Amino acid sequence: MSSGTIYGVGLGPGDPDLMSVRADRLLRGARHVAYFRKAGRTGQARKIVNGMIPSDAIEFPMEYPVTTEIPLGDPRYNQELSAFYEEATAHLKALADTGEDVVVLCEGDPFFYGSFMHLYSRLRDRTPVEVVPAITGMSGAWTATGDPITWGDDVLTVLVGTLPEEDLARRMGQTDALVVMKIGRNIDKVKRALKTAGLYDRAWIVEYAQMPNQTVTRLSEACEGVTPYFSIIIVHGQGRRP
Amino acid sequence: MSSGTIYGVGLGPGDPDLMSVRADRLLRGARHVAYFRKAGRTGQARKIVNGMIPSDAIEFPMEYPVTTEIPLGDPRYNQELSAFYEEATAHLKALADTGEDVVVLCEGDPFFYGSFMHLYSRLRDRTPVEVVPAITGMSGAWTATGDPITWGDDVLTVLVGTLPEEDLARRMGQTDALVVMKIGRNIDKVKRALKTAGLYDRAWIVEYAQMPNQTVTRLSEACEGVTPYFSIIIVHGQGRRP
Repeated sequence: MSSGTIYGVGLGPGDPDLMSVRADRLLRGARHVAYFRKAGRTGQARKIVNGMIPSDAIEFPMEYPVTTEIPLGDPRYNQELSAFYEEATAHLKALADTGEDVVVLCEGDPFFYGSFMHLYSRLRDRTPVEVVPAITGMSGAWTATGDPITWGDDVLTVLVGTLPEEDLARRMGQTDALVVMKIGRNIDKVKRALKTAGLYDRAWIVEYAQMPNQTVTRLSEACEGVTPYFSIIIVHGQGRRP
Repeated sequence: MSSGTIYGVGLGPGDPDLMSVRADRLLRGARHVAYFRKAGRTGQARKIVNGMIPSDAIEFPMEYPVTTEIPLGDPRYNQELSAFYEEATAHLKALADTGEDVVVLCEGDPFFYGSFMHLYSRLRDRTPVEVVPAITGMSGAWTATGDPITWGDDVLTVLVGTLPEEDLARRMGQTDALVVMKIGRNIDKVKRALKTAGLYDRAWIVEYAQMPNQTVTRLSEACEGVTPYFSIIIVHGQGRRP
């Protein structure tokens, strides 16, 4: 029997109308659908495809054993996640071995800070895997601001909020255009770094880009409080324009 | 009469199957289709939508008055391009004023180094404009390499080959993951900068990402000669992975 294929399907920023034609077709024809989620939650990826995947598709939720309970630097974090990815990989490979195709839901673009990469690196030499690229969350965010991100010779730097404050500030100070991802509980540190770099007043924060509850706010006017992990901060480039 | 809308429609890297569902719908229903091209050429954007736009759609090719004949630094370059964008804007606005919608074809993602931005900035306060984001050319390129671009805390830097060699080398030396766009006749300079930064052996060059004539080559094994303007160089991040 020939093996099935595991498709890492990028869903884009969250609007089904912004999914690729290929993703739309794979989702609507899926027999097996796998996705990551936090234990006890529906999961953002699964929510996005509500009403798109067939009602009789067989679902395989992959529940993170840890998210923020163990610090990133603790060796147990890597151990627990690694065991989790191995187990998920084994399940997906077993399905493919029986000839079944599996669609794995990936928020944003699978190869850009995506969780699917951890399955992909374990599967790629053992079973057919295909990756369907997608509109990145950051593209969704800069489009939502109504201003282009890069002009002419602009340098774009993409940073994650998990970096140390000094690194963030230094790199922010050296770029023309900036995107900051993985904000969540790092928001206060990211704000301080933006102030150090002199970019705070030009920064925008986009929550739930391209989703019904999207908000686009100048960072300096944003409310205090909990910031969703998937918020994205944008500083637009000011490069050459005829 | 109510005004029509000008849609800046991102086509993505070039495969119609990777266009968004929204882009696909707008293209197939278009009555007016505008696109940039070099004088005397079909134009890459127009080629991509061959067979997709209605045969009776009214086409408006916008032909660049200059491309590489005048150096970027020459004031005439900006003057000629500015006049060209003003003229194109006037034509599009006149169409919208008569109630017609217009689809403007944009390679890649419109707000990411896109030519449409120059029309958008002139139209946005005068007529309804909507931007449809798309899969960036760089997403198409890193997906084509079969390796993720960013892991964990990786910093991604996007550079354009038009920058001075020293700037390129310095910035290349400070990043984890790298994308270089707008290569073309800058290829030798970009190669030298990659060598200075110690990244040359890790660099890949992707030509015509996600198109039938796509090539993915280690830069060190790529043939000498003309490099297409839309080639993209990729250096993958090596960040944290459980």
